[in-house]
Amino acid sequence: MSNYHCPDSKTVQTLKDIANKLRIHSIESTNASNSGHPTSCCSAADVMSVLFFNVMSYTVDEPRHPNNDRFVLSKGHAAPILYAAWAEAGLFPASDLLELRKLTSDLEGHPTPRLNFVDVATGSLGQGLSCAAGMAYTGKYFDKADYRVYCLIGDGESAEGSIWEALAFGSRYNLDNLVAIFDINRLGQSEATMLEHDLDVYKARVEAFGWNTYVVDGHDVEALCKTFWDASHVKGRPTCILAKTYKGQGIPGVADAENWHGKPLGNQALEAIKAIKDNIINAGPHNIIPRQPTVTLSPVNTSVELSQPPSYKLGEVVATRLAYGTALVKIGKNNDRVVAMDGDTKNSTYAQKFKDAFPDRFIECYIAEQNLVGVGIGCGTRNRTIPFVSTFAAFFTRAFDQIRMGAISQTNANFVGSHAGVSIGEDGPSQMALEDISMFRSVPGSTVFYPTDAVSTERAVELAANTKGICFIRTSRPNVPVIYENNEPICCWEGKGMLSIVRQSASDQVTVIGACVTLYEALKAADILAERGVNIRVIDPFTIKPIDADTIIGSALQTGGRIITVEDHYAEGGLGEAVAGSVSHQSGITVKRLFVPEIPRSGKSEELLEKYGISANCIVKAVENFLSA
Amino acid sequence: MSNYHCPDSKTVQTLKDIANKLRIHSIESTNASNSGHPTSCCSAADVMSVLFFNVMSYTVDEPRHPNNDRFVLSKGHAAPILYAAWAEAGLFPASDLLELRKLTSDLEGHPTPRLNFVDVATGSLGQGLSCAAGMAYTGKYFDKADYRVYCLIGDGESAEGSIWEALAFGSRYNLDNLVAIFDINRLGQSEATMLEHDLDVYKARVEAFGWNTYVVDGHDVEALCKTFWDASHVKGRPTCILAKTYKGQGIPGVADAENWHGKPLGNQALEAIKAIKDNIINAGPHNIIPRQPTVTLSPVNTSVELSQPPSYKLGEVVATRLAYGTALVKIGKNNDRVVAMDGDTKNSTYAQKFKDAFPDRFIECYIAEQNLVGVGIGCGTRNRTIPFVSTFAAFFTRAFDQIRMGAISQTNANFVGSHAGVSIGEDGPSQMALEDISMFRSVPGSTVFYPTDAVSTERAVELAANTKGICFIRTSRPNVPVIYENNEPICCWEGKGMLSIVRQSASDQVTVIGACVTLYEALKAADILAERGVNIRVIDPFTIKPIDADTIIGSALQTGGRIITVEDHYAEGGLGEAVAGSVSHQSGITVKRLFVPEIPRSGKSEELLEKYGISANCIVKAVENFLSA
Repeated sequence: MSNYHCPDSKTVQTLKDIANKLRIHSIESTNASNSGHPTSCCSAADVMSVLFFNVMSYTVDEPRHPNNDRFVLSKGHAAPILYAAWAEAGLFPASDLLELRKLTSDLEGHPTPRLNFVDVATGSLGQGLSCAAGMAYTGKYFDKADYRVYCLIGDGESAEGSIWEALAFGSRYNLDNLVAIFDINRLGQSEATMLEHDLDVYKARVEAFGWNTYVVDGHDVEALCKTFWDASHVKGRPTCILAKTYKGQGIPGVADAENWHGKPLGNQALEAIKAIKDNIINAGPHNIIPRQPTVTLSPVNTSVELSQPPSYKLGEVVATRLAYGTALVKIGKNNDRVVAMDGDTKNSTYAQKFKDAFPDRFIECYIAEQNLVGVGIGCGTRNRTIPFVSTFAAFFTRAFDQIRMGAISQTNANFVGSHAGVSIGEDGPSQMALEDISMFRSVPGSTVFYPTDAVSTERAVELAANTKGICFIRTSRPNVPVIYENNEPICCWEGKGMLSIVRQSASDQVTVIGACVTLYEALKAADILAERGVNIRVIDPFTIKPIDADTIIGSALQTGGRIITVEDHYAEGGLGEAVAGSVSHQSGITVKRLFVPEIPRSGKSEELLEKYGISANCIVKAVENFLSA
Repeated sequence: MSNYHCPDSKTVQTLKDIANKLRIHSIESTNASNSGHPTSCCSAADVMSVLFFNVMSYTVDEPRHPNNDRFVLSKGHAAPILYAAWAEAGLFPASDLLELRKLTSDLEGHPTPRLNFVDVATGSLGQGLSCAAGMAYTGKYFDKADYRVYCLIGDGESAEGSIWEALAFGSRYNLDNLVAIFDINRLGQSEATMLEHDLDVYKARVEAFGWNTYVVDGHDVEALCKTFWDASHVKGRPTCILAKTYKGQGIPGVADAENWHGKPLGNQALEAIKAIKDNIINAGPHNIIPRQPTVTLSPVNTSVELSQPPSYKLGEVVATRLAYGTALVKIGKNNDRVVAMDGDTKNSTYAQKFKDAFPDRFIECYIAEQNLVGVGIGCGTRNRTIPFVSTFAAFFTRAFDQIRMGAISQTNANFVGSHAGVSIGEDGPSQMALEDISMFRSVPGSTVFYPTDAVSTERAVELAANTKGICFIRTSRPNVPVIYENNEPICCWEGKGMLSIVRQSASDQVTVIGACVTLYEALKAADILAERGVNIRVIDPFTIKPIDADTIIGSALQTGGRIITVEDHYAEGGLGEAVAGSVSHQSGITVKRLFVPEIPRSGKSEELLEKYGISANCIVKAVENFLSA
């Protein structure tokens, strides 16, 4: 371990001067936009100056270069100071900062990856550390590189449980390339934080969660330099720097005062800027060249294929969740950047098969779904990996905010939820995903796969791996027969739904749309109805989003304008509303919807399909009612 | 402080015998259902025996009596042992336990309040402690009663951040009537837990979170009795009992073994039961009468009215979020059981007004939305309070799993989300709720209010307070004009949507449906179109769920079958799909939908309405296109 050399007094003064310039930029830009959080920036100014101009290694011209150290601003409302730091580093002119929050500028109210120096969007609090932990895990174990990951966290947001999930994860996996900085400025939005400036309690909590922990004066530039240097030499544990700061630090009359959250300084700005300028010895430009990365990483191949096509016999019974595990291993064989993670359900989701095949590329995230999703998103940044994240589909509701933010983060992470609907049977409603399609459909740019059999599940996995944006694959618990040939052409993909017409005749009177368990019920219903002289068309949509409206409308118009949807899901936002919405502009079509109408109970799978109105019998009845109306 | 008297040896043996009987019941019932988690029950058997037959005060005949101590089984998959405990207490015959998980039985796979001894549904892990904390807060501060709250937590689920949010909350509010028991059995579902049997780490973490903490052998009945007694005498702090246990304790060959999660014993059951029986001295019946509650609480009046009707001038501009605060104070004046809580956004949601009026009935939950929602649900159990829970609507996505479970819990909690849609302006997409209507619509039994002006917002608050099931009120940031008279008759409520036709004529050609900001845009569009000789009907749905399909269909049929929906929300699951779904069975109607089509940007509110296609101009264009088609 080399000895620490304190920066010389000129360097220290420069860092202080830059910190104050960052303060001024933050005040000016929020004043220009007449909104924003200057006081939340000012508390972090010294930390930001030291990080960007003394600690981190990066190339300014290519902020997202894989070699660079990563920085995550978990307290996203301090965006103006992040923008100011990159402007001071030379990425763009400081005058651009005055475009803050304007429709024509990418310098938005909270950071998003529309900016080339942002990896993950922040602004919904408490999410940054999980993403940072995913980046650090990737750096240490997948890239095996020496880039480091820094995450700046607000004290208010440290009340979020997701922060503590991420802290537990960081120490569990010895992420010594990860540094969290708590900006403990004592004040939240509407009142003081729970712990105010009780640094001892913070220290006890974070240390108990297994982190190497320092308490430091967050406005002492020399102390910060030393602390970051110390952190860089700690092996086997992540480091947390608890920085005692003051909100609005540097602004007379505002520093440490209540009622200044999220308010520009208005006509107090000039006086504040003057006071801060009085502390600046040299206003620059400083032309500091950051430390440069020492290793070079290759770009990652993000194209993925199944190493072998599906190999099932028609009629063979295979749960789609099992086919997921099989397919994941196949794409893992084809591309060593496919990684997987799960929240202690891997023996149910069948992510276990991937862990067995590639133990070094599987991350057990334990029962902490928010962190599970955040780690997945973090692993996928800069296209370093192709992450597949699995748990029970119902439990992704736990991470809806992370998934929502993942879309804003432009993540390509893939989510695979098992145990869909009442078909799981006896475990009861808490374990049944009945709102998952709705949730994932409402995510902008998402693709929602609901494969019916093992063949189409394998293709869904392959397609998801190659599809931009968030992909969700809904898998099911029961064993169901294979209905597609192994060479069924579902491998092409042009951004529209991949619907299959599973049964049809020239005399079909109703189009019935179902998926997986309800598709099999529809096929049973078709058999029963055929015996009664009524033919129906049966459609497997494969993707619920996008939905292939053209084919559905075409089919409906050939079947008397009649559509019945049947889904193992609640009414709202699921298959039925997706279809109803997609045909609503077309006259001459009516849609009747079968769905789970209330909170279901424990019971046998087939009993529940019957009780909640989505069985073959119920479809038969619905078809007959439709035709007699 | 009285001295502890160790239970006599006969009592101790009885508690041991009952624990073993609970084990046998758990094995038998899961074998009968051929599913379930007997080993997760066996680790908790001694704790359950001591709690139910030595520690807790309750009347067996009225398990939900307000005087009783509360028990929350956060590790809901151990349901069989909860059911067994109540059977042993005499609530129902033990033979019923063999009906576990059958469709005809309320003894479901995980506990729900269909059972009269369950306050909150559990089974999605890590949620019980927040609900228990809400109950304890209610007991200590609202009921001012001496009932105590016990919450049994699995070690696997203690990885959930929500547990740590609840722990922070419990110590912040000195909930010395709350006892958490961690059943640390070392094994999760798919592998060992993160911390296995490292009790020291658990102790350091929980103590750092401010709890009085004991480590105890969770299979030592005497030690457990003593520990619970000690806990009952601690003032000012909640207590956490860290019970070291073994999964499957008592079952030879299964105890502490991997791969036994969620598996009935099958043909090993007989041998296991024999081994356990060998340890029972007296198989009972024991006829233990639990300690009886000493105080008597009155039932709570749950009927609520605004203390004064709305008092606005037509055209006066008032943000609906502000009207929420005003209304909340009014119902608070009318009913002292109205309580409110918020996650450090009270100055934005205007819950602040309630805190100012009734500081003792407001709970600041800090930035921890999962716990915020869980506390709200807990406060509402046994109808002890009428809770209103507020934050930015976008941040309720953080607690979707808690809300989902809240519906299964039959909660009447009310959720109020501010800052809806792009109309918030510069803060950007992370702060904009654009999927909240979809999320709350997908909650079974929910009511979704989207009031347009201050008058209807006040009535929404009053209606929500009186409505069973989960209510969501979506409020908006911008100031908008009052359009309803103060005595507008929106106070009646018959379980259907409360739609108002805001503008109509005999020659309307299109029905346009919007709410709040988009309703005002629709009215502007109506003015523009009227000048061009085109009349449109404008409808304010008031509730998006239920949606008043009859009136909408009736209106559509009077306007050429044409409907346009316009919403400050994404396409999926929102107003447009609600309308499309509700009219889809009716021929002769077509629906065109305007919505926010992509992740929006920061910008001015009116700029964003225009850019994302939901402004008056966009409505005019849509109407004209519709008519020219």
